[in-house]
Amino acid sequence: MHNLVLIRHGQSTWNLENRFTGWTDVDLTEQGREEAVSGARLLREEGFTFDIAHTSLLKRAIRTLWLVQDEMDLMWVPVFNTWRLNERHYGALQGLNKAETAAKYGDEQVFIWRRSFDTPPPELDTDDERHPGKDPRYAALTPAELPRSESLKTTIDRTMPYWFETIAPQVRSGLRVLIVAHGNSLRGLVKYLDDMSDEAITKLNIPTGLPLVYELDDELKPLRHYYLGDPEEAARAAEAVANQAKSG
Amino acid sequence: MHNLVLIRHGQSTWNLENRFTGWTDVDLTEQGREEAVSGARLLREEGFTFDIAHTSLLKRAIRTLWLVQDEMDLMWVPVFNTWRLNERHYGALQGLNKAETAAKYGDEQVFIWRRSFDTPPPELDTDDERHPGKDPRYAALTPAELPRSESLKTTIDRTMPYWFETIAPQVRSGLRVLIVAHGNSLRGLVKYLDDMSDEAITKLNIPTGLPLVYELDDELKPLRHYYLGDPEEAARAAEAVANQAKSG
Repeated sequence: MHNLVLIRHGQSTWNLENRFTGWTDVDLTEQGREEAVSGARLLREEGFTFDIAHTSLLKRAIRTLWLVQDEMDLMWVPVFNTWRLNERHYGALQGLNKAETAAKYGDEQVFIWRRSFDTPPPELDTDDERHPGKDPRYAALTPAELPRSESLKTTIDRTMPYWFETIAPQVRSGLRVLIVAHGNSLRGLVKYLDDMSDEAITKLNIPTGLPLVYELDDELKPLRHYYLGDPEEAARAAEAVANQAKSG
Repeated sequence: MHNLVLIRHGQSTWNLENRFTGWTDVDLTEQGREEAVSGARLLREEGFTFDIAHTSLLKRAIRTLWLVQDEMDLMWVPVFNTWRLNERHYGALQGLNKAETAAKYGDEQVFIWRRSFDTPPPELDTDDERHPGKDPRYAALTPAELPRSESLKTTIDRTMPYWFETIAPQVRSGLRVLIVAHGNSLRGLVKYLDDMSDEAITKLNIPTGLPLVYELDDELKPLRHYYLGDPEEAARAAEAVANQAKSG
């Protein structure tokens, strides 16, 4: 049996300001840092350890991982950073306040962009300063790979090759893997592992900072999954994330 | 022309307690953290950036690197951790207070262990709890690779393959490389790059926290090297390191 642990990063400064974040590289708030340390304590108390870790190219996830490594005394564990674990790219909405966006485009349209499976928000122009082609961390991506906007579907489409090519072989070989990422890239993994429908995955809200443990068989089929810590707290955390989305 | 930047980690808790540290995984002090951030500011002010970073498996170097990455807004830069950049293993002296060791073995013997090129301190027994074979981070090393004690010579012997096999090809290919490591693993690189004698390298004290910049030609021969920041401060820092060694 293999254990795989997923952690969604905690509160960022733009969560707090209620802005569309996407690939914007905002940092964790103090609360977000505390969520990471709490998650790491749960892992330590339950005797978890890791041989390798994967995260995105965005500092809110990287810092979450660093805080977990520090708290677990695993700073030496090799870390792989990939754009494929980045948050969904929010296109031309990135940086806009969610209430302002609703006033401009209407509640219904914003709801569709946020909650449909396959409708991307308006695309960024290639000369927009927010376009990822202007950021050196994405220099190795082909023009076709550089997103101008993503739906949940296209986010999952670019996340999953990293699972099949990089993470899954490591888990299968017996390495204990930690993945620290974002709401929508983690949805991709969960959708695949639990064989969820397009409709069901749009409704799944993964709580922040709580380690999500998958127990996988030798074919990497889930035997079960569970959140570490108090199940009621996990339910409350998921509810809070869902409500934030509704009010946004 | 290629730039290569080396940084020696700053003050650790055992520097402060004047103990032989070696592979013991002690953390930075507050002063050590400030040294790292100061070094990063110098790099940022001079317009340096990096594509890739290498460090050891020891948290005083890893934390130094993390602080540099954070200050330079380069948390996304890929990091490679290797035991080959670890500090010299201090054998059975690890954990002992330097003054106590001198009282037990005599000043002259301790001076030889500290300052000769090729005399290792007494070896650890393989069942000693300090033996690196007991630490999961060294699980991939062969028994022959696991040191029981190291001289400066044997430290350099196991550091340099990492230069030739991993770092040098990256520098040659145009990647801007940062190495954050330890006094003796960095001595190995400097000895090779500057073609220094065994005698000369034992006398070289690399200051902590100050970025050491090598400008290399296409064959990776140094055109020049210099410390970032105030040269007088660099000289004072090197002197302070040398004096600490003498008093130890």
